[in-house]
Amino acid sequence: MQTILLKRRPKGIPKISDFELVTENENLTLKNGELILETCYISVDPYLRGRMSDAKSYIEPFALNKPISSGVIAKVLDSKNKKFIKGDYVSGRLNWSTKQISTGVNLTKVDSEVATLSAYLGVLGLTGLTAYCGLTQIGKPKKGETLVVSGAAGAVGSIVGQIGKILGMHVVGIAGTDEKVDLLKTKFGFDAGINYNTTNDMATAIKKLAPNGVDVYFDNVGGSISDAVLLNINQFARLVICGAISVYNNTEIPKSMSVQHLLIRNSALMQGFIVTNYQESFPEAINALSKWLAEGKLTHNETIVSGFENSPQAFIDLFSGKNKGKMVVKI
Amino acid sequence: MQTILLKRRPKGIPKISDFELVTENENLTLKNGELILETCYISVDPYLRGRMSDAKSYIEPFALNKPISSGVIAKVLDSKNKKFIKGDYVSGRLNWSTKQISTGVNLTKVDSEVATLSAYLGVLGLTGLTAYCGLTQIGKPKKGETLVVSGAAGAVGSIVGQIGKILGMHVVGIAGTDEKVDLLKTKFGFDAGINYNTTNDMATAIKKLAPNGVDVYFDNVGGSISDAVLLNINQFARLVICGAISVYNNTEIPKSMSVQHLLIRNSALMQGFIVTNYQESFPEAINALSKWLAEGKLTHNETIVSGFENSPQAFIDLFSGKNKGKMVVKI
Repeated sequence: MQTILLKRRPKGIPKISDFELVTENENLTLKNGELILETCYISVDPYLRGRMSDAKSYIEPFALNKPISSGVIAKVLDSKNKKFIKGDYVSGRLNWSTKQISTGVNLTKVDSEVATLSAYLGVLGLTGLTAYCGLTQIGKPKKGETLVVSGAAGAVGSIVGQIGKILGMHVVGIAGTDEKVDLLKTKFGFDAGINYNTTNDMATAIKKLAPNGVDVYFDNVGGSISDAVLLNINQFARLVICGAISVYNNTEIPKSMSVQHLLIRNSALMQGFIVTNYQESFPEAINALSKWLAEGKLTHNETIVSGFENSPQAFIDLFSGKNKGKMVVKI
Repeated sequence: MQTILLKRRPKGIPKISDFELVTENENLTLKNGELILETCYISVDPYLRGRMSDAKSYIEPFALNKPISSGVIAKVLDSKNKKFIKGDYVSGRLNWSTKQISTGVNLTKVDSEVATLSAYLGVLGLTGLTAYCGLTQIGKPKKGETLVVSGAAGAVGSIVGQIGKILGMHVVGIAGTDEKVDLLKTKFGFDAGINYNTTNDMATAIKKLAPNGVDVYFDNVGGSISDAVLLNINQFARLVICGAISVYNNTEIPKSMSVQHLLIRNSALMQGFIVTNYQESFPEAINALSKWLAEGKLTHNETIVSGFENSPQAFIDLFSGKNKGKMVVKI
């Protein structure tokens, strides 16, 4: 069996040498209550970058020379736990190991007939929950309002935009390639898209595509893209601060536009969050997402990388935007 | 009678030459429903700077060559309005004129026996309402939490800190002179104060005086002082964005620390506001403020400048922090 450890705390953009792949003899014997899991899919997510640093944060940092962990879909190979039987598929926050023992705590069974296994890491997993809870709980979207989404072709962003459309909003997405902008409009039903890599004056471009101003901004990126959106917000705008991928790899605290006077001028709200703040809304969220998925109103996109050993590279590729939609590693 | 007009839109810090004092013949004849007012006190406030620019904002800009207006306490000299009689004192948003005619709309009678007339521009006026509504509605203060206030010796800040103490918080104030910091502790009952003009490392100074971290930040200043506070916020911190006096006179959009990643890391809220958003809470606020004032739990401080013609200079002096507490002009 193989495991991926955090070898060094990355400086700036993570490098392959920050990780170590170790091979161990399998010696997995079960005690009562335990089960053996074989990993099927690993979720790679931008937020993991935060856990690789030792800065104060909402979850404790990964320990050096210990396994990385994230959302994982696994198959039960053997079980001495009454809640699970051999052949079950489960989802949980698990180690980046090809096999592992679990006590079953915080594992959820997933049904491969309702959706593909990898969907439980995406639209029906933390990704979908993040999109739904952030947009509805903080964004408080109203029909006819304008929603701007950054990182719009990413895992969370592509779902946020689609939910916005389902709720009757005018939706503008920001992404980094023409191909992604095309995808926003043709696959995800956004009203408009902007390629920030080929647009000189982002603030003016946003103004053109959001002529009534921005009521809700779902922010996955931070930095200068967010500055340009902020220059277009309406009174009582809600800024859902979900991610800041543009600054995660900075080695110094980044500077950008001072936001306070804009928040005052527009009586606007900025709320940072992590999805687990909204746990009481998860059942409602899963219901809505499953229903929309079944009705064909929600499309999900995945970038699937093959091979356990490629997990670190898949993670690193998030920061150059190589993924479209949810990035997962298939074992 | 005399009136002060906006002569030019200020560039950077306003100058006396941006204003014009004009003397007119008094020719005030009353129609039915009208009253003649003689100005007693004029409120000068940082937010007026915003109205002197023609940038998009929550209230329309002052027109050039027209009177400035702000909170004013006036005496009724004559009345053809059933709601007011000669000798009444009223409060309202009125012109910077020694005398003027009013229709009585949006005027409120004030009782000079309950509090001094100028208090109705301060602790019992928009200043007190701003402090109370911002702190309670956005800050949602809890006993035992830590409150940091910037512009703490100013009109709003000194009331915010006192309300924080009444509600059982640990209160730290930031101000610009040792004399003001002294005042915070001896007159307003703050637990601690920091002079930002003599402190090199503000983030460390705040950490020392707010050892449990910052739960609520009442921000009157923006800029680098706010950056230093943000580096000390706790999970679920509430940042009440009331003023940004440090940047009001900037001619370019200022840069400061990027806040988004800190908001995410701490699931923190930043909410900009103007007091009129919370109009439904005004009766509750006035009740609480009057009660605390009568009980001696709330002290208010005023800087009173004499002479109508000195109103522009009093306003300009706000930006160099010449006031302690509420700045008013006595006519």
